[in-house]
Amino acid sequence: MRDLLREVLEANLRIPKEGLATLTWGNVSGVDRGAGVYVIKPSGVPYARLTEEDLVTVEIETGRVVGSRLKPSVDSETHRLLYQAFPEIGGITHTHSTHAVAFAQAHRDIPVLGTTHADNFNGPIPVTRDLTPAECESEYERNTGLVILDVLDGDAASVPAALVASHGPFTWGANATKSLETAVVCEEVARMAIHTLALNPAAEPPEHLIRRHYTRKHGPDSYYGNV
Amino acid sequence: MRDLLREVLEANLRIPKEGLATLTWGNVSGVDRGAGVYVIKPSGVPYARLTEEDLVTVEIETGRVVGSRLKPSVDSETHRLLYQAFPEIGGITHTHSTHAVAFAQAHRDIPVLGTTHADNFNGPIPVTRDLTPAECESEYERNTGLVILDVLDGDAASVPAALVASHGPFTWGANATKSLETAVVCEEVARMAIHTLALNPAAEPPEHLIRRHYTRKHGPDSYYGNV
Amino acid sequence: MRDLLREVLEANLRIPKEGLATLTWGNVSGVDRGAGVYVIKPSGVPYARLTEEDLVTVEIETGRVVGSRLKPSVDSETHRLLYQAFPEIGGITHTHSTHAVAFAQAHRDIPVLGTTHADNFNGPIPVTRDLTPAECESEYERNTGLVILDVLDGDAASVPAALVASHGPFTWGANATKSLETAVVCEEVARMAIHTLALNPAAEPPEHLIRRHYTRKHGPDSYYGNV
Amino acid sequence: MRDLLREVLEANLRIPKEGLATLTWGNVSGVDRGAGVYVIKPSGVPYARLTEEDLVTVEIETGRVVGSRLKPSVDSETHRLLYQAFPEIGGITHTHSTHAVAFAQAHRDIPVLGTTHADNFNGPIPVTRDLTPAECESEYERNTGLVILDVLDGDAASVPAALVASHGPFTWGANATKSLETAVVCEEVARMAIHTLALNPAAEPPEHLIRRHYTRKHGPDSYYGNV
Repeated sequence: MRDLLREVLEANLRIPKEGLATLTWGNVSGVDRGAGVYVIKPSGVPYARLTEEDLVTVEIETGRVVGSRLKPSVDSETHRLLYQAFPEIGGITHTHSTHAVAFAQAHRDIPVLGTTHADNFNGPIPVTRDLTPAECESEYERNTGLVILDVLDGDAASVPAALVASHGPFTWGANATKSLETAVVCEEVARMAIHTLALNPAAEPPEHLIRRHYTRKHGPDSYYGNV
Repeated sequence: MRDLLREVLEANLRIPKEGLATLTWGNVSGVDRGAGVYVIKPSGVPYARLTEEDLVTVEIETGRVVGSRLKPSVDSETHRLLYQAFPEIGGITHTHSTHAVAFAQAHRDIPVLGTTHADNFNGPIPVTRDLTPAECESEYERNTGLVILDVLDGDAASVPAALVASHGPFTWGANATKSLETAVVCEEVARMAIHTLALNPAAEPPEHLIRRHYTRKHGPDSYYGNV
Repeated sequence: MRDLLREVLEANLRIPKEGLATLTWGNVSGVDRGAGVYVIKPSGVPYARLTEEDLVTVEIETGRVVGSRLKPSVDSETHRLLYQAFPEIGGITHTHSTHAVAFAQAHRDIPVLGTTHADNFNGPIPVTRDLTPAECESEYERNTGLVILDVLDGDAASVPAALVASHGPFTWGANATKSLETAVVCEEVARMAIHTLALNPAAEPPEHLIRRHYTRKHGPDSYYGNV
Repeated sequence: MRDLLREVLEANLRIPKEGLATLTWGNVSGVDRGAGVYVIKPSGVPYARLTEEDLVTVEIETGRVVGSRLKPSVDSETHRLLYQAFPEIGGITHTHSTHAVAFAQAHRDIPVLGTTHADNFNGPIPVTRDLTPAECESEYERNTGLVILDVLDGDAASVPAALVASHGPFTWGANATKSLETAVVCEEVARMAIHTLALNPAAEPPEHLIRRHYTRKHGPDSYYGNV
């Protein structure tokens, strides 16, 4: 639990450090499946004075805050739904990073335009449908999670990221650190995509190249990295 | 008064630190309503050697400089008019931040394109009308304040920011720090908007989502933050 | 002379610090009219190890290097011609800053789009004509100065900057520091202009506003700054 | 060999420092022709904890790893093919820098638009053809080198850079440091080109100016720099 708190703190502090959001925006959480809880950034606390003690522990099943003096991020219920839906997820990051938000606001998927994308995501980063008035009225944050589930269609592994329409990116991974790094990549592929589409609106990579790059880093035939 | 000086100094120093303007550009002021004065950056002093002693104290009612050896920012009369018109304002920031200036120069409001905007502003950030030749001729800085009043139409609370046409953003808030942070957000939503409009010139968020995000952080039903 | 060397060194070191050019690109010079010389950056020396001893002193009249062990910047003859043509100039900066170069490469003046520009330049920053094959063949750097003179038409004061076509900006001022700061402003107004033109290709400020801003900071009716 | 390890380490560390790639992306190698080997970044090691001991030594002729405990970069075989094809190359850099990748993804050469480009490259930076399904299926990294060779047509000296289609830039030079610096320039001319083409899609510099700038810094008539 000590380790989880430290990791979640450090991942949160990387949000401003990596240029992913300004002021208090964004949040990272990490899970302890054994204890049935996740640890998340408190609501509205500036990064400059965020400590391990400020982090909020929440029960995955009930949403009950466990022994914390602060309220969790307003987006906590979105995290909780994703943890419930996908037992393999160990960390979640939400940012308002500039270029990923631009795609979310434009209601456009981030398309696969090259190997940088394919090294990390097995397909476009999808944008969700808009929430309905009723979904915004009540249990808004939980419903935000539900439109993410909709667009994932049961598969959180191939593309560990989604753009909530008119809002911004959620990313996830095996732990808090991985989810943060996926947020970094999501922003960078969005930035590359904006410039690429300006140079060539019809840009498209060959499917076999994309396949090669994804499998080079993921799955049984992967040969990237040093363990 | 000590505290006000320190806060106004620190808010001014955040202008270059947050990347909102180069060289000596920009200025922040903060008010002491009890004493009937505001404190503002002096004209043309580089941020690198700005001290509390350099700050200029000005009477809200008369515009008279009180016991300062330097001239206030040339924009001081614009600040003063806003303080006179809106008793609830405690701080004002003016910058020449790149992307907000681009909207001001393009004579376009910064439209509401998503939740980042709606978390902070209850509507588009409006651009003023152009000043007339007569308004530029005499009492130019006071007239700059008047066109801001025009576009606000009595409501400084819903959208605490305006773009002066062909010039740049003014933002305000409960104090100097808040006005500076609103300037940071104004620049960021402008940057996001430019990329969004490039990806989708017809981008528009659902009204009920925007409403939900604004009320989540503002007003009686707000549930954001930790007091 | 000691002071001049220090100022020219510091102005050169601000080129990378202000993000105006990468690697060894760019150069600043400053003049000692009494001694009839200017001091300029040597050719091809990285900023990280540039010292006062590396700076090269050149006679304005003859172009002869005086007591320096290094060759001056390849652009030295362009500086020299400008010093000869305009006795009031005390410093010159040449950079390859990204957005100003984009205008130079696009063969477009940087237009006056708002007060940030008008605070510093009394009109568009002009792009020169292309050099002819003969002008490129022999005395190329001196001819680069001559096309700048062409576009200035005898007036180096109103707009202390020009873009050499397909090349980049030269800026100047009362001394090396001022010329460098004008290079900073030139890059920033270019950046603002690119975003403005993307939002509104027909953007144009009212002439009387532009006039007011320029005269607010320049000439007999100026009331900006603290002496 | 000590010196080579230090140089290759430092060149690799400049990838994130110069903003050329995020996380573990990118790699630099340097060659020892006498020993018949090159030294390259290991696969997937974060820059923050990269040491000389982590670098991997590979035989140019056989591709065999010599006395290293880590696997080389997955792109190692691309480096090896280039070292085999061009004996004059002493260092190679591969990055996923944003703007160069945008051109690679758009399947567009980076055109010569001005002197910044011509100071460094004697022509457009070419984009390769797409790899075929068979070329992606087997010996993919070696085939990536082969499409670079195709586009170079035997001349690695005039333009020491190429963009692999839908992927990103490879650059090279006399040593690891030079190849890294060429990667910096490649990214910067790509950035300038994107802005230039937005301002003027038909922008083109005069051929004689381009010729003058290239020969000013390269070949027998060069007069740039201090030895």
